[in-house]
Amino acid sequence: MDSLLKPFMNSRKVYVPGKMYPDIRVGMREILTEDPETPVVPVYDTSGPYSDVDAKLDVTKGIERFRESWIMERGDAEQLDDMTSAYGRARRANHELDHLRFNAEHHPLRAKQGHHLTQLDYARKGIITKEMEYVAIRENQRLDELQAQGKIKIEGSPITPEFVRDEIAAGRAILPGNINHPECEPMIIGNRFLTKINSNIGNSAITSSIEEEVEKMAWSVRWGADTVMDLSTGKHIHETREWIIRNSPVPIGTVPIYQALEKVNGKAEELTWELYRDTLIEQAEQGVDYFTIHAGLLLEHIPLTAKRTTGIVSRGGSILALWQMRHHQQNFLYTHFREICEILAAYDVAVSLGDGLRPGSLADANDAAQFGELDTLGELTKIAWEYGVQVIIEGPGHVPMHKIQDNMARQLEKCHGAPFYTLGPLTTDIAPGYDHITSAIGAAQIGWYGTAMLCYVTPKEHLGLPDRDDVRAGVVTYKLAAHAADLAKGHFAAQFRDDALSRARFDFRWNDQFALSLDPEKAMEFHDKTLPGSQAKASHFCSMCGPNFCSMRITRAVRNFVATGEVGDV
Amino acid sequence: MDSLLKPFMNSRKVYVPGKMYPDIRVGMREILTEDPETPVVPVYDTSGPYSDVDAKLDVTKGIERFRESWIMERGDAEQLDDMTSAYGRARRANHELDHLRFNAEHHPLRAKQGHHLTQLDYARKGIITKEMEYVAIRENQRLDELQAQGKIKIEGSPITPEFVRDEIAAGRAILPGNINHPECEPMIIGNRFLTKINSNIGNSAITSSIEEEVEKMAWSVRWGADTVMDLSTGKHIHETREWIIRNSPVPIGTVPIYQALEKVNGKAEELTWELYRDTLIEQAEQGVDYFTIHAGLLLEHIPLTAKRTTGIVSRGGSILALWQMRHHQQNFLYTHFREICEILAAYDVAVSLGDGLRPGSLADANDAAQFGELDTLGELTKIAWEYGVQVIIEGPGHVPMHKIQDNMARQLEKCHGAPFYTLGPLTTDIAPGYDHITSAIGAAQIGWYGTAMLCYVTPKEHLGLPDRDDVRAGVVTYKLAAHAADLAKGHFAAQFRDDALSRARFDFRWNDQFALSLDPEKAMEFHDKTLPGSQAKASHFCSMCGPNFCSMRITRAVRNFVATGEVGDV
Repeated sequence: MDSLLKPFMNSRKVYVPGKMYPDIRVGMREILTEDPETPVVPVYDTSGPYSDVDAKLDVTKGIERFRESWIMERGDAEQLDDMTSAYGRARRANHELDHLRFNAEHHPLRAKQGHHLTQLDYARKGIITKEMEYVAIRENQRLDELQAQGKIKIEGSPITPEFVRDEIAAGRAILPGNINHPECEPMIIGNRFLTKINSNIGNSAITSSIEEEVEKMAWSVRWGADTVMDLSTGKHIHETREWIIRNSPVPIGTVPIYQALEKVNGKAEELTWELYRDTLIEQAEQGVDYFTIHAGLLLEHIPLTAKRTTGIVSRGGSILALWQMRHHQQNFLYTHFREICEILAAYDVAVSLGDGLRPGSLADANDAAQFGELDTLGELTKIAWEYGVQVIIEGPGHVPMHKIQDNMARQLEKCHGAPFYTLGPLTTDIAPGYDHITSAIGAAQIGWYGTAMLCYVTPKEHLGLPDRDDVRAGVVTYKLAAHAADLAKGHFAAQFRDDALSRARFDFRWNDQFALSLDPEKAMEFHDKTLPGSQAKASHFCSMCGPNFCSMRITRAVRNFVATGEVGDV
Repeated sequence: MDSLLKPFMNSRKVYVPGKMYPDIRVGMREILTEDPETPVVPVYDTSGPYSDVDAKLDVTKGIERFRESWIMERGDAEQLDDMTSAYGRARRANHELDHLRFNAEHHPLRAKQGHHLTQLDYARKGIITKEMEYVAIRENQRLDELQAQGKIKIEGSPITPEFVRDEIAAGRAILPGNINHPECEPMIIGNRFLTKINSNIGNSAITSSIEEEVEKMAWSVRWGADTVMDLSTGKHIHETREWIIRNSPVPIGTVPIYQALEKVNGKAEELTWELYRDTLIEQAEQGVDYFTIHAGLLLEHIPLTAKRTTGIVSRGGSILALWQMRHHQQNFLYTHFREICEILAAYDVAVSLGDGLRPGSLADANDAAQFGELDTLGELTKIAWEYGVQVIIEGPGHVPMHKIQDNMARQLEKCHGAPFYTLGPLTTDIAPGYDHITSAIGAAQIGWYGTAMLCYVTPKEHLGLPDRDDVRAGVVTYKLAAHAADLAKGHFAAQFRDDALSRARFDFRWNDQFALSLDPEKAMEFHDKTLPGSQAKASHFCSMCGPNFCSMRITRAVRNFVATGEVGDV
C-alpha cells in the first residue's frame, strides 16, 4: 500500500472551509505552475487522504470518519448494539476468519424509528446539509473564487448549495453517502454536475486477494474514480468489503445478488427473499453507499431475449432470469421492491436500478428486451422516491453511435429525469483488448447527451480480470471521456485546465504540462523515452521536430510580426 | 523485418479476380471460424504481401510492381531516360550514400505530352479503370457474393465499379495511385466508402534509422493503416523514402515542404519556388501518392493567429507563415498553385490541402484563422479539379465534441464535397499520454459525420516520437474508431464482423473471438494472463466470473425455457 500513498507532482492538498458550515473541509488538489496567469490550478480530487502528505494512514485502522459527527448531530440516527444481519454475526463469530478480519469494531447506525434521513428526504424538506454544501464547493474547484476576484475569466455560473439541494429534491441528482460510511467524501451524481466515473474492482473464484482489492480501490481513486463498485464473487466477500469501505474516501457500490448467490453455493434457484434481505442489511450496515438491484427484469421480458445474438449478459440479470424460470414466478426483487426501499431508506443507501437485459452486442442494442426493462425501471423509480430513496438508472452496454442518443432520451423520459449510469457503451464489438477505447467513444458521447456517471471499462474487458495497470488505464480513459463530455456540455469550470495545459505546452513548460495532465507520470515517462534528463525538460523543442524545426517557436515570430511588422530573431 | 512477415491467426490470404478485368487480383483476408453460420469471414486487408505466406519478400528488391502493366497498357505514360529532379540526380551521384541506397533502379514514368492520366481524368471520361474495379471488389469484402448466394442477410447494396467511377468524377472520392508507385494496391478515400485511416511515420533530427522507418511502414499496414505518411525531417530523407515506397502496398503521402526546408538547412526564408518545385518532381518521380500542400495559408490569415492560445502548431503552416513574414509576400504555394497542379497531374499525385492553421488547443478551435484558411482551400479545390488533380482537405486538430459537427458541415460546403481528412480531432487537451484516445473519441464522431480518412494519433502525441508499440496502438485505435463510424453510417458490410465476433464470444469460441478481432495477438495475450493454456480456450467460462457463475451459460437456459417451458440442465 505504501507505494500508493504519494502526492501528485507539483501539487498540494488543500481543504476549503464551508461558508454555511465553516467546520466542513473540502479536500482539493492545487497544481502549482510557472504560469503567472494561473500560478495555481485547482482540480477536482477523488484521492482523499491518499494524496495528502500530512495524512496519517494505517490501512488496518481505516481512514478518518469525519462525517460521523455530521450524521450524529442531526439526531435522526441511532447506533445499534449489534449488527442486524444474521450472516454478519455468524461471520464475526467464526474465528477461522480472524486473520482476515478488519480489526477496528464498526458499530452500525440506522435511522431512528419514524425518522427520514436520506439526502433526498432532507432536500425535499428544504434542508441544505453539510454534504450538499460540500459538493457545491467541490464542484466549483475554487474557480468561483478566482472568478469573483476577477483573476480569471470563465463563462457560466458556479454551483450553489441551493442548486445542489434542488437537483437532489427533484431526483435529477443523488448524493450517495450511507450513514455507515462516514469515511466517504460527499460527491454528487447528476447531469448538471461534473460527469462522474465508476471503477469496478472485486475478486472472483479464480483470482485476487483482499490486499489486492484494497490496493485497486486506492489506486482507482488516485487516478480519478468517483465511486468504486466491489463486484467480488469469490471467497471472503464480507471481509473484503469491510476493508475496502473502511479505507475508501469515495462511495462504494455493490451488487448484493452476487454475494447472495455465493451463500447458496451458486445455485440460483435456492435464492430466497429472506436470504437476499439479510444480505442487503448486512451490506447496508457495513456502509455500502449504493446497491445495484435488478428489480426491473420481469418474467415477461425473458422470452424477448431468446432470439438475441448474445442473450442476457448481465450477471445479475441472468441469475434473476434463471430464478424466475425455475420457480415460474415473478422476480422477487420486483415483488419485494417496497420492502427493499424501506431498508435502503434506513441507512441512506441509494439504489442503482440494474439493467439486467442490457445488450451484450451491437446486434442486440435498443431491442424490445432492453427497452421493456427500462419501462419497468421508470415505474420502480417512482416507488423508490416515495420512500425517499435516491435513484440512479443503469444503462448499456454495446450500442453503435447512431443509437446512443435514443438511449439517453428514452431513459430521461421513462425514468422521470433520474440520473443515468451507463457502462460504456461500446461502439463496436471487434476490438477486444481495446474495449476501454471502443467504450470511451460511446461514453464521451452519452456523457455529452446527459449521462451522469460512466462505468469504466478496462482493456481486459471480455478477456480477463483487470490488474493494477488495467485499472489505471480504465480510470484515466474514463476520466478523459467524462472531461470531454463536460467540455461539450459547457460545464462551468471545465475548460480552465485545458487552457492552462495548452499554454504550458505552447511555452515549453514541460513540467507544467506533465503536472496539469490526468496522468503526470505517464506523460513524463513517454517524454523521457526520447529526451531523458532534466535539461530536456527546459528545452524549447521536443523530439518530434528537433531543435531546428519547431512550429511553436516559429509562431512567436508571428507575434513579433503583428506587433512590429518584422519577425526579428526567432 | 522477418518478424513482420507472418500471416494472421486462423486466416488465409485470398485474391479475388475482377469481372470486368479478370486479370486483376484483389487481395483480401479470410478468417476461418468454427461457426457453421459463417465459416469464412472475409475482411478488408491493408497488409499486402506481408500477410501472405506464399509471397516472396525481399526488402532490398521491393514488393511486386503489379500495377505497372495496367499503367503502361493505357498508353498515356512514358518512361523517362533519367529522373527530372536536379536534387535527385545529385543524390544518386553521391557515392557516399551508396550504402544507404535502395538497390534496384527505378525509371520514372510521366504522362506523355498532352495526355491526362489521373483517375479523376478517367472517371470524368466515363472510363472505369482496373483500379476502380479493384476498389469496388475490395470495399465489398466478398460479402456481396455471400449476400447474392443468400448465405447471409445484410442490409444495403454493394459498391459497384460504376459507383466508384461516379464518386471520383464528382470529386467526392479519390483513388490515390502515383504511376510511379506500381506496388500500391488501389484503395479509395470518400465518405460513401469505408472510413480510412492514415499512419504517420518518419525520422526526425533526433532519432530513427531507415530500417526503423521501413519497419514502421510494414507494421502500420499489418495493423490496418490504409495510407502511410512519411514525415521525415532528419537525414537521408530521399533515401528513406525510396525504401518505403518500393516496399509499400499502400499509398504514401508526404509534406514536401519538410524536405525542402532541410535542403536550406532549416532556414525558412531561403525557401524558393524553384527549390520546392524540384522537390515536388523528385518525390513525384519516386512514387509519392499524395502531397500535403499548405497553399491556403495566406498572408492575411497570419495576424488572425496572434491572439491564439497556441498560435500556429502545424509544422508546414509555421514554415510558410515565417517565409511570408520574412518576405512580405503572399504564400508562394498559393501563387504557384496552378504550376503545382500541372506537375501533380503528370504523375497522378493527389493533393491533400494542408490546414496550416488548424487549432492546437480547444481554445483555438473553430476560430477565424482556421475557417479563413478553409475558405481558401475551397477555392484551391476548384483549381486542382481544373487540372484533373484529385483533392482531399485536411482538418483539425483539437476540437471539443460540440464543435465537431460544424467543422464537418463547413468543410463539405466550402470545399464542394471534396473528401475530408482529419487529424483526430482531440476532444480535450488534458490527457497527454492518452491522446490516441482523446482523439479517437473525436475521430469516430467526425467519421460518422462524414470524414473520409482519419489521421491517427499515437499515445506519444505531444511527448515524443512513436515507437513500434505506439504505432500499433495508434493504428488499432484508429481502425476501431473508423469501424465505429462505418457502423454508425450504416455502411453495407460493416456489422457482419461484429456479429460474427459476438456469436463467437457468446459460444465461448475463444480462438474465433481472437481471430475475428482487430488485434488477435493482444486479445489472446490478455486472455492468457489470467487463464493460460490451450484447455482454457475451450472452456465454457472465463476468468471474470469463474466456472459456477456464468451469465452466458445461464442464458442457454432461457432458450430451453422459451422452447419447452422448462429450464432443463444448464
